[in-house]
Amino acid sequence: MLNFLFNVKSVAVIGASQDPMKIGHAIMENVLGTGFSGKIYPINPANKEIMGLRCYMNVTEVKDSIDLVVIALPASRSVEALSQCVEAKVKCVIIVAGGFSELGGEGRALQDQINEMIKGTQTRVIGPNTVGVLFPYSNLNTALTPKERIYYPGRGEIAFISQSGALGLLTMDSITEYDLGISGFVNIGNRTDIDESDLLQAFSEDIHTKSIAVYLESVSDGNKFYEIVKRVNLKKPVVVLKTGRSEASSRAASFHTGALASDDRVIDGILKQAGVQRALDEVDLIDYGKALAYGKPLKGKRIAIITTAGGAGVVTTDLLTSNEYGPALDLTKFNDTETAEMKKAVLPFASVANPIDLTADGNVDTYEIILDVISKSGNVDGIIAYALPQTPKIDLGIVDVLSKYARNKPMVVGVIGNRLAKDVLRELEKKRIPAYPSISRSVKAMKVLYNYGHFLNRRGVP
Amino acid sequence: MLNFLFNVKSVAVIGASQDPMKIGHAIMENVLGTGFSGKIYPINPANKEIMGLRCYMNVTEVKDSIDLVVIALPASRSVEALSQCVEAKVKCVIIVAGGFSELGGEGRALQDQINEMIKGTQTRVIGPNTVGVLFPYSNLNTALTPKERIYYPGRGEIAFISQSGALGLLTMDSITEYDLGISGFVNIGNRTDIDESDLLQAFSEDIHTKSIAVYLESVSDGNKFYEIVKRVNLKKPVVVLKTGRSEASSRAASFHTGALASDDRVIDGILKQAGVQRALDEVDLIDYGKALAYGKPLKGKRIAIITTAGGAGVVTTDLLTSNEYGPALDLTKFNDTETAEMKKAVLPFASVANPIDLTADGNVDTYEIILDVISKSGNVDGIIAYALPQTPKIDLGIVDVLSKYARNKPMVVGVIGNRLAKDVLRELEKKRIPAYPSISRSVKAMKVLYNYGHFLNRRGVP
Repeated sequence: MLNFLFNVKSVAVIGASQDPMKIGHAIMENVLGTGFSGKIYPINPANKEIMGLRCYMNVTEVKDSIDLVVIALPASRSVEALSQCVEAKVKCVIIVAGGFSELGGEGRALQDQINEMIKGTQTRVIGPNTVGVLFPYSNLNTALTPKERIYYPGRGEIAFISQSGALGLLTMDSITEYDLGISGFVNIGNRTDIDESDLLQAFSEDIHTKSIAVYLESVSDGNKFYEIVKRVNLKKPVVVLKTGRSEASSRAASFHTGALASDDRVIDGILKQAGVQRALDEVDLIDYGKALAYGKPLKGKRIAIITTAGGAGVVTTDLLTSNEYGPALDLTKFNDTETAEMKKAVLPFASVANPIDLTADGNVDTYEIILDVISKSGNVDGIIAYALPQTPKIDLGIVDVLSKYARNKPMVVGVIGNRLAKDVLRELEKKRIPAYPSISRSVKAMKVLYNYGHFLNRRGVP
Repeated sequence: MLNFLFNVKSVAVIGASQDPMKIGHAIMENVLGTGFSGKIYPINPANKEIMGLRCYMNVTEVKDSIDLVVIALPASRSVEALSQCVEAKVKCVIIVAGGFSELGGEGRALQDQINEMIKGTQTRVIGPNTVGVLFPYSNLNTALTPKERIYYPGRGEIAFISQSGALGLLTMDSITEYDLGISGFVNIGNRTDIDESDLLQAFSEDIHTKSIAVYLESVSDGNKFYEIVKRVNLKKPVVVLKTGRSEASSRAASFHTGALASDDRVIDGILKQAGVQRALDEVDLIDYGKALAYGKPLKGKRIAIITTAGGAGVVTTDLLTSNEYGPALDLTKFNDTETAEMKKAVLPFASVANPIDLTADGNVDTYEIILDVISKSGNVDGIIAYALPQTPKIDLGIVDVLSKYARNKPMVVGVIGNRLAKDVLRELEKKRIPAYPSISRSVKAMKVLYNYGHFLNRRGVP
């Protein structure tokens, strides 16, 4: 029902402004500056033209049908503006302003007016109290932060639903570092109408979306959420960062988005039951989303590690096999044939016991030989490979080799360092290989692939 | 006794080479290219001159006294070369080659020859099986990886002792991203002579060192380590990343550095007894070192959080107050006077309950007013402040304000995002404020300051 959001043809901005200090200015700049090819209607009775576009008095004045309206006005005037939109049969309205239910009392009453107004109509509402939406595949960006302050991600395979606007924007800015893209971002804010469950459903049907990351401070409707998330997670893996574990953080959340933080134990039970991975912070949330979008679920616990830095292999083993600090996975034992084949390819100093340490002499060709043995092995369920361009014989050619073998077996790649390492990470991103800039982030990604694979196994999903 | 390492006046490189494929070439380039102002003697019987410097046949041919020799030769020839160094009364020799005890058998015997050779002499040995040392305060870099492949950190306050060479180099490359510096780096390798305890002692007496980060796969001498680390940690906080928690990782470590991984429970007991913080990976190791080098130990559990992104405050609260996923610290409750003072400074939408959420309207002046109240409060033991330049009224001026108040109270700063955020992180680094690019890394830094403060409290250290 909300799938039209992924392919909006026309946008109006009520409160569009020439004044760079106004939010209606930044939103117009983002809508115009992201290459949106649909129709754009600035709405502001005080202007005849904004940014080279004809400006309208009112949404109802536009003769075209409008898919999406962004209302960039203060709270009380937003409700008035919404009534124009309902009249004009707009499909979806984003209400940016805060000052609604998160303030309680009068704000709550104002928010109730929104619900009254759209009841029984075809108009749906995102927000209020939202920074907007981003849909890179249709070049649509209605966010309120100007591009000078933030980088917005391009096209990718992770959908991102966030109850918090600022944290959503900050997280998107962060992930652009390694050119990570998204399939869409929606800040649901006070979610008086469209909520996380509606969007889970919509993104589960979106062709570009491979996994869904969700930031929540509370759940809008527990039963609805459970019914939808358990179905969606079987089709497209879902990761949830849900706060409110402690009384202190529930209180903080209630000040923030006005939501009564649902009892965390109930939500935790729902997520466990639905096989949904839970993230602890904004980095985990996207890291896990990436692992599940790009990686293959593990069918078993036996991992092979390959590295040119022995210490990285040792620390990886330590975390990977720990049941206290890690996922308690196992290191594969290679059989004699496998060991002999690998021994032929490496220098005498190198170790082909697991972790396989090629030492600083390891080169891309040796990686290929070793990965060939590993990927054919019946003793290996998943691979953690390090791609370390600081060692003299590793160059960007490692990316092609890794991507070839990542098609056969679940693989996570660790890349540690600054300039050259970032180049490698960006190339791996282009190939959609789950790659991470630290050991523990790599191990956690493998944990998530294991957990999701284990969940699918239990459900009998092949 | 090893303090001369921090102020080496003369370096010789045995195996110095014109051939860019040789390690003796890269080492010479690093020694020459880092601005070392002492004397440099290339040693290679096949050359008269290397990189514009007179080349010597032999160390004993050099008439000057030599503080440090780097031997960049294969294992067997390294032992011969060492005998020249002993004869020439060199203070310290770095043996780069692998092929010693980590291989067992013959390698073990070769390493024993080193010990025999230096016994009773004034010559000390670093290695074998080491990538070298880095001492930015004397512009000395003997590492074997060329600058085209890796960035080396500049001057800072964290000493870094690593049993693993490659992981040490990768970690140093990583930390240059935010211009983090070090006071020194030593890769102890097989540590046939100089070990982690000797260097802990030396760095504890180094004026530039404020904290010491140590990567270990095993402990060289448990009793010696315990005696030294418990003393050093009271003076300069120590962080240890020690692997070998599981049988699998002990085995991996034994292949890597040849050391029998000591029983982890024993080491864990030693570290706990000595009040040493334990890191889980290479990121934690330096993050914790930075918190302890720049930050003040916490005297109590009551934390204030200030942010312009409400969601960041909520997630921080969630982790900070958790006893399962975090340090179980408390959020301060401000008294009525404090609350009233803060209320005057902020817009009606903002929350001055803890976490203090200034919302996107928060500006640098408001931060100053709020931090002034917080830092004078008797109810606050530590501060987590977010510096988020994506919100429209926060600019680099936030750095001066934060650094002013970081002098009074333990403070950790969180900065999330890409380009502008990185600028802020680099400025905070210049001011020596412990700042981190994610929520959980910020919370873990605060945990470490709490743990160390708690340890000092228990020991009655004021």
